[in-house]
Amino acid sequence: MSQQRVVRPTPISGFPEWTPQVRAVEQRWLDHIRAGFESFGFASVETPSVENLDVLTAKGETSQEVYTLQRLQADAKDDTDARLGLHFDLTVPFARYVAQHFNELAFPFKRYQIQRVWRGERPQEGRFREFTQCDIDVINVDSVPLHFDAELPRIVHGVLSGLDLPAWTLNVNNRKVLQGFYEGLGVKDPVAVIRAVDKLHKIGDDGVREILLGEGLDDGQADACLSLARVRGADAVERVRALGVSSDLLDEGLEELSFVLGDLADLPEGDVVADLSIARGLDYYTGTVYEASFDDDPGYGSICAGGRYEDLAGQFIRRRLPGVGISIGLTRIFAKLVAEGRIAPGRACPTDVVVVVPGAEQRAEALRTGALLRERGFNTEVFHSAAKVGKQIQYASKKGVPFVWFPPFGADGGHEVKDLESGEQGPADPSTWTPER
Amino acid sequence: MSQQRVVRPTPISGFPEWTPQVRAVEQRWLDHIRAGFESFGFASVETPSVENLDVLTAKGETSQEVYTLQRLQADAKDDTDARLGLHFDLTVPFARYVAQHFNELAFPFKRYQIQRVWRGERPQEGRFREFTQCDIDVINVDSVPLHFDAELPRIVHGVLSGLDLPAWTLNVNNRKVLQGFYEGLGVKDPVAVIRAVDKLHKIGDDGVREILLGEGLDDGQADACLSLARVRGADAVERVRALGVSSDLLDEGLEELSFVLGDLADLPEGDVVADLSIARGLDYYTGTVYEASFDDDPGYGSICAGGRYEDLAGQFIRRRLPGVGISIGLTRIFAKLVAEGRIAPGRACPTDVVVVVPGAEQRAEALRTGALLRERGFNTEVFHSAAKVGKQIQYASKKGVPFVWFPPFGADGGHEVKDLESGEQGPADPSTWTPER
Repeated sequence: MSQQRVVRPTPISGFPEWTPQVRAVEQRWLDHIRAGFESFGFASVETPSVENLDVLTAKGETSQEVYTLQRLQADAKDDTDARLGLHFDLTVPFARYVAQHFNELAFPFKRYQIQRVWRGERPQEGRFREFTQCDIDVINVDSVPLHFDAELPRIVHGVLSGLDLPAWTLNVNNRKVLQGFYEGLGVKDPVAVIRAVDKLHKIGDDGVREILLGEGLDDGQADACLSLARVRGADAVERVRALGVSSDLLDEGLEELSFVLGDLADLPEGDVVADLSIARGLDYYTGTVYEASFDDDPGYGSICAGGRYEDLAGQFIRRRLPGVGISIGLTRIFAKLVAEGRIAPGRACPTDVVVVVPGAEQRAEALRTGALLRERGFNTEVFHSAAKVGKQIQYASKKGVPFVWFPPFGADGGHEVKDLESGEQGPADPSTWTPER
Repeated sequence: MSQQRVVRPTPISGFPEWTPQVRAVEQRWLDHIRAGFESFGFASVETPSVENLDVLTAKGETSQEVYTLQRLQADAKDDTDARLGLHFDLTVPFARYVAQHFNELAFPFKRYQIQRVWRGERPQEGRFREFTQCDIDVINVDSVPLHFDAELPRIVHGVLSGLDLPAWTLNVNNRKVLQGFYEGLGVKDPVAVIRAVDKLHKIGDDGVREILLGEGLDDGQADACLSLARVRGADAVERVRALGVSSDLLDEGLEELSFVLGDLADLPEGDVVADLSIARGLDYYTGTVYEASFDDDPGYGSICAGGRYEDLAGQFIRRRLPGVGISIGLTRIFAKLVAEGRIAPGRACPTDVVVVVPGAEQRAEALRTGALLRERGFNTEVFHSAAKVGKQIQYASKKGVPFVWFPPFGADGGHEVKDLESGEQGPADPSTWTPER
């Protein structure tokens, strides 16, 4: 204390951090998501935060966002470390994991993975450089039953429904429907059309039409593509058929979409909805695709997304491993709600009961009482000194602790407990006490 | 598949990764540790994985182990990112956090923090470059009651006792006892003696004596220092007093040590032990110090360590924030036991029940049954196709799932459940079924 130089700590843009009250809510969310995933039999996988750079860049696409590691005091011998990069998603590490542990896994392999990921973005409002993703994937050797295309949105629906979020919709589509429809129209490059339609929510009908005409589609074809993109809701499959286009791939896609929607028919209407405008830009997806967004802020973009892919890990192993996966952007969702004041802060600490220490002589009894309450599942603090009782109650109150416990004073006293919310105080037995709330 | 180049994935030295079966155990450990911390009222804090370099190096000591971040495709504008480093422990981030959020925290502030940390070590057998630490600290403005010096080893004792570890001992000492004893002996540089005695387990009595004599101690003083270091066990305080050295600081330290040992007297004998040879090399610690190691492999070093310090965050804020903390080296412990085959692998998946789908017509009924069992708290998979029943049972068995559920076949059938361990099968009601194990 001190002539010492003081480094004033400042937040680092893109790296979110929460007060204990907000962190308590985030932890509750994480527990809820994990329990939701496990309730469907998904197993936890965690991978190192880093991968070798040749693994991260095996597909070459997102290399510009990778953070590489360097030793602060690096020397010429340290070039090995320069080959490590923080993972920018959980799919590449999972693909590498499955390839590396292939013989140790039971297939179909259902895994969830909840971890931080990093992207070397420029500091910018609303861009996260460190954030937590919650991924589930089912992969199998050679083929994956369509069952899972329906199970994944069911899981995500259950998880999101339990988080007290502003209204959201989980949209479902099928890339085979899009590609098959465009093929049936006689379009030469269906993938270019998919890319154009994927921009619909940003550039509107006219913008998409312009691109389509530029791709060589005629007016009728462009109209049909835009009609398809307007199809949405429970009768989507019938409405697509009514557009009068046909191809084998379209039939296959509609059958798959129909299966998924039928399977999810028991969910509340409007929660999981067919939306033929959803394309998911990545070529990666080949069948069912998912994308959820907030109803009141669709421009914020997807809060969870995924789909079916033909091959998870072809860059790492010569086995065909198709799968279907979906990822919840936990930090994306949570940080937005925190910023908007829509997260009710939790308590400052997890303590249920503070046991008062009336005097040094009662300390041993207070410790015994604390141990007993803890054994019975109550998070319990024994107050840290024999301060005035009023001060001990004040401490509990300041920290939002709901109950204060009084071990016996003197020879004929008994245990008492005080409910700080109601103010009521009365006798209680630490070995049987159960609070009403 | 495919002309594509295959990148053969290889493990990265120092970055541990587990199969799902081992990961299941690690997750159980993490839950247990967290519950133990929360049961004493400690609040969760998480900080970003990175800190600004001036924060990480504010004390200047450990800078050689820091990993800095660099964008893979960096350009001249990116020099800000080069100022970020992965945290190498959880103390520096916590100090920065407390300084930054000082006005938002309630004191005494009791926090736990369970996160990965990174050290830019050279790849080397047994050295982790990424590992998980589990820290608890209590800090307060200006002073921290001695209560917490006893509470922290009690918490750690409870946590470690629940982890089914090989025998370990948590050793306790007090730096004031050491320093006060050396001062009472008339030693000029007590800190130099502390550093020498800290090497006792590595270099033995003779090695320490040599250093002490080199520091200018005479034979009698050196003998006394070594006698002190041999004091261990329940009567430690009396035995130190019997050495006949005295100073005010020694008295103060013995009183503190005595309080801590007395407070922990209810723990099983030999679990938490006074050991006057424990010094904890860091100057950081000023009173109580802790260090636990495995009884059968003391050379492996500490599996948890900590102590009392005078000031947490003086480099970041002009407030005196003394505290006491202890850190469990989760990965250090866990990875050793995995390597030695002492971790019994968990199940390949968290599934309690697989619901059979006898045919496509029974799928809806199977889904309803699955939903009901899940609501009742059972992790439940509905089998992913209407495969032969034998194949479905085989799947459950291969994944280590304990129960297989049969929804009603035909009009007059009822639900049945099969226990795969005992082989028994019988009628069961999904809304009331409770397995015996």
